[in-house]
Amino acid sequence: MANEKTQGITIKKTEDFSEWYQQVVLKAELADYSPVKGCMIIKPNAYSIWQSIQDYFNERLKKLKVRNAYFPLFIPESFFKKESEHAEGFTPEVAWIEKEEGEERLAVRPTSETIIYDSYSKWVRSWRDLPLRINQWANVVRWETKATRLFLRTREFLWQEGHCVYETKKECDKETLKFLDEYENICKELLAIPLIKGKKTEKEKFAGALYTTTIESLMPDGKSLQCGTSHNLGQGFAKSFGIKFLSKDEKEEVPWQNSWGISTRLIGAMVMIHGDDKGLVLPPNVAYNKLVVVPIIFEKEKDEVLVESERIFKMLKIFNPIFDDRDGYSAGWKFNEWELKGIPIRIEVGPRDVKEKQVVLVRRDNNIKETVKVDKLKKRVKELLLQIQDDMYNKAKKFLDESIKEASNWKELENVINDKKIAAAFYCGNVNCEDSVKDKLNGVKAICIPFSKEKKRGSCVYCGKDSKEVAYFAKSY
Amino acid sequence: MANEKTQGITIKKTEDFSEWYQQVVLKAELADYSPVKGCMIIKPNAYSIWQSIQDYFNERLKKLKVRNAYFPLFIPESFFKKESEHAEGFTPEVAWIEKEEGEERLAVRPTSETIIYDSYSKWVRSWRDLPLRINQWANVVRWETKATRLFLRTREFLWQEGHCVYETKKECDKETLKFLDEYENICKELLAIPLIKGKKTEKEKFAGALYTTTIESLMPDGKSLQCGTSHNLGQGFAKSFGIKFLSKDEKEEVPWQNSWGISTRLIGAMVMIHGDDKGLVLPPNVAYNKLVVVPIIFEKEKDEVLVESERIFKMLKIFNPIFDDRDGYSAGWKFNEWELKGIPIRIEVGPRDVKEKQVVLVRRDNNIKETVKVDKLKKRVKELLLQIQDDMYNKAKKFLDESIKEASNWKELENVINDKKIAAAFYCGNVNCEDSVKDKLNGVKAICIPFSKEKKRGSCVYCGKDSKEVAYFAKSY
Repeated sequence: MANEKTQGITIKKTEDFSEWYQQVVLKAELADYSPVKGCMIIKPNAYSIWQSIQDYFNERLKKLKVRNAYFPLFIPESFFKKESEHAEGFTPEVAWIEKEEGEERLAVRPTSETIIYDSYSKWVRSWRDLPLRINQWANVVRWETKATRLFLRTREFLWQEGHCVYETKKECDKETLKFLDEYENICKELLAIPLIKGKKTEKEKFAGALYTTTIESLMPDGKSLQCGTSHNLGQGFAKSFGIKFLSKDEKEEVPWQNSWGISTRLIGAMVMIHGDDKGLVLPPNVAYNKLVVVPIIFEKEKDEVLVESERIFKMLKIFNPIFDDRDGYSAGWKFNEWELKGIPIRIEVGPRDVKEKQVVLVRRDNNIKETVKVDKLKKRVKELLLQIQDDMYNKAKKFLDESIKEASNWKELENVINDKKIAAAFYCGNVNCEDSVKDKLNGVKAICIPFSKEKKRGSCVYCGKDSKEVAYFAKSY
Repeated sequence: MANEKTQGITIKKTEDFSEWYQQVVLKAELADYSPVKGCMIIKPNAYSIWQSIQDYFNERLKKLKVRNAYFPLFIPESFFKKESEHAEGFTPEVAWIEKEEGEERLAVRPTSETIIYDSYSKWVRSWRDLPLRINQWANVVRWETKATRLFLRTREFLWQEGHCVYETKKECDKETLKFLDEYENICKELLAIPLIKGKKTEKEKFAGALYTTTIESLMPDGKSLQCGTSHNLGQGFAKSFGIKFLSKDEKEEVPWQNSWGISTRLIGAMVMIHGDDKGLVLPPNVAYNKLVVVPIIFEKEKDEVLVESERIFKMLKIFNPIFDDRDGYSAGWKFNEWELKGIPIRIEVGPRDVKEKQVVLVRRDNNIKETVKVDKLKKRVKELLLQIQDDMYNKAKKFLDESIKEASNWKELENVINDKKIAAAFYCGNVNCEDSVKDKLNGVKAICIPFSKEKKRGSCVYCGKDSKEVAYFAKSY
C-alpha cells in the first residue's frame, strides 16, 4: 500500500495533459474505472465535492421557490417520439431495458423532459399552478461510444435537472438566465471556476429547445468545456405533451418552459483548471478536509511534538483537519501524499515550533510558507482559506481572459486555435459556415455567442457576409 | 383545479385502510402513479421528507466516519453469480439492459453489494485501510410483479446503502448494531415512528448475510412493516469477491463486512401511522412548511386582517410558513386543504384577534386550539412544534406497545393475529415451523427475534419443542 501511494504523478501537466488528468483523478482517489464499460465509480473524495454542490444549490433552490422531486428512471419509448427534434437528438445514445412480453419498450433516462412533462400535463390546470418549478437530483445514462474520460465522458453520470413552467415567454426568458447565473455562482464560489456565459448557436442548441444558454470554461489544453446549460424550451414540449392552462381571463393557453442542468462533469473541470504537476489542488470551499496537520518527528522530542500537534489538530476541528501521525512514513512522504490529494493547507509542527509556540503553514496552491503563532492560528487559517479561494479563482480568470483573442479573418482564426486559445470572430449565423469551420479545423466548434460582447457589425470569419454577432470558436470536450 | 382540490379523503381510515392510504398519498400530493408500470413519482411534498432524512443522516455519517460515494447503476451478470445465496435471492426481480453485441449482460442494480465489493477487492490491501466505511444514496430497481403500493412496493425506489469492511467479527457485530441504532434515531427524531428492534430468522434474513438485524413497526391495519435492516455479512462476500488484507502481524486475512439500508418506504410508514380521516399528519421535524397562516376575512376589516396576518407570517419566517391569502376560497375550504396536507400548526387571524393582539393556533395532530398573544407567538410555536413531535411519537409508541401480546399456544397465536396485533411466541428456530405458521395463518411471518425480550425457555408455538427464543409473529407488508 505504502508503495502504491508514494507513487505521485509521473508526468507533467504540460507534457501529456490527457495522461496527467487521468493520473490525478485516479491517484487523488477522486474516481475509478468500473468493470462496467464506460461507467465510473465516484469515490468519496469526489463525491464530497458533489455533495457541497448539492448542499449549496439546495439552499439556493429553496430561496428561488424551486422544489425537489423525483421521477422514474425509465421512460416509455413512445414518450421520446412526441417531441421530434428531442427524439432525434437523444435516440442514438439511449440504453434500453429488456422488453417484457406485451409491455412497451423502456429507456433508461438520458434526460427527463419527456417523463416529467407527461406529469406536468396532468398537474398544470390554471394560472394558479404557475410558475411550476421542480428540480431533480438524479443519475442519467447516455450510451457513449467514444472513449471513457472520467467525469467528462461516462455512460452514467450524476446531475440535477430543473424543469419550470411559466405563463409568459418573458418570465421564462428571465428565469432561464437566472438559473445560468446561479450556475455561475456555484462555479465561482465553490469550484473557483471562471466562465464565459453565452447562447449556443442553432447547431449546438439542445434538441427541442427554442434556445440554449451555456456556461463554458477553457481547460489548460486549449479545449473549451461546457459546464452547464439552461434551455428556454419555448412551447414545443408543452404542445407535444398537451400542457395547457386556464389564464386569469379564462382562456386556454400553452405555457412556456425551461430546463437547466449541471453535472459531476464540473469536478473534471475543477481538476483540469487547478491541478498541477504535484496533483490535485482543491478550492478550499469544496475541500472535505481543509487542512492537514503533520508533526515533524525526531526521536528526541517525539512526545512534545505529538502532544502539541494533536492539540493544534483539535483546536482546528471546524476545518475538518487530517491528523497525520502515522508511524513509518517520513514527513516528506506525507507532504507528497497530501499535495497529491490537494489539501489546501498543510500545517507543520516541529520541535522548534513547539518551543516557539508557532507552526508553519504551507499553501497547496502556490507553495508559499509562513510561520504563525499558535494563538493567532485559527484566525489566520480562516483568512488564508478565503485568500486561497480568491487567488485560485483570479488566477484561472486571468488565464481565461487572456485566452480570448479576436480573429478578424480565417488566418487569424487558425492561428488563435493553434495557439490553444478561444477565437472571437464574427459569424453570420449560417449553419453551413459553422460546419465548414468544424471540418477544416479538426472539430473546432462555435462554443457560444457570448453575452459579454458589445454588438457591432463585421464580416463572417468563414463566408465574409455581413454579421451582427460574434461567436467564440474553440476546440472542445 | 379548485374542485379537485376541495375533494378531501372520502373514506375513513378504519373503513378501508388500503384505499384510505392511497387517497392520502395522492391527495396530499406526496406521490403519483407513473405511466411506467410499477414506478412512482415522488412529489415535492414527499421528496422534502426524504431530503430531511438525507440531511440528518449525512451529518451523522460524517461523525461516524462514513464517507459517501457512488457506484455504477449497472452490474455485470457474472458478479451476481459470485455469491450464490445472494444471486438466488435477487435474480427473479432483476431488470436487464438490452445486451450489446459481444458485451456481458448488465443488470440494473437491485442492491449494490456485488459491484461495490468488486472495488473493495482492489482498494483493501492492509489493516491500515480498515475499517472502510462507505455509503451510497441511490435509486434501486426490483422488478416487482405484485400490485404497486406507493412508497411500499414500487419497481424503483430511493435508498441509502452502507457498506463497511472490518478486521474482526467483533467490530463488525458492534457496528452492525450501531447503524441499526442510527436508524432508530432517524425514525424517532424525524418521523416520530416507534420501532421494534430485533434479528431476522434464518428464513427471513438477507440473501448472503450471516445474520440480519431489523427495525419493524406496526401499521394501524395490524401489518408489520420492515423499516430498515443492517446485515452482518460475515466473510461470505469477501471470500467470493477476493477481499483480503494484510494484518498487523503480516498475515493475509479475510475481513468481515456489513451492509445496511433505509429507503423512501419510511415515508409510507409515516403516512400510515400518523394520518387520520382528514388526511396526512406531518411530524413537525419533517414538515417542509411547519405552519400555515390563514387570515379570516370579512369584507369590513379585510385590510387590517391582511396586514396583520402578513406581519405575523413574516415574523414566523424561520418556520417556513405558508401564507394563504388566496381570494375566492373560504376559510373552511383552506382549513381542509392544509389539514389534508398535514401542516402541523394552523394560525388563524380574524378581526377580533387583530384588536386583541392575538392569534388562534390549531394543532393538526389533535385539533386542540389555543389563543396566543402575538408577542409570545414565536416562542409558543417553537414549544408547540416540539410538543407535537413528542406527542405523535408517544401516541404511536403506546399503540405499538399495546399491540404486542404474548401467545403461549396455537389458539392464542391465532387470536392475537386475528385481533391485528403482534404475537410474541416461543419459536424453536426450525424453518419448517415458520413455514407452517405462514401456510396456516395466511402469510403471517416471524417479523423478528426481538432484542428486548429477556431470554427464557418455553415451548415452540407450532411444534411444542423446547425453545430458547421468542419471535414476534405478524402479518406484514
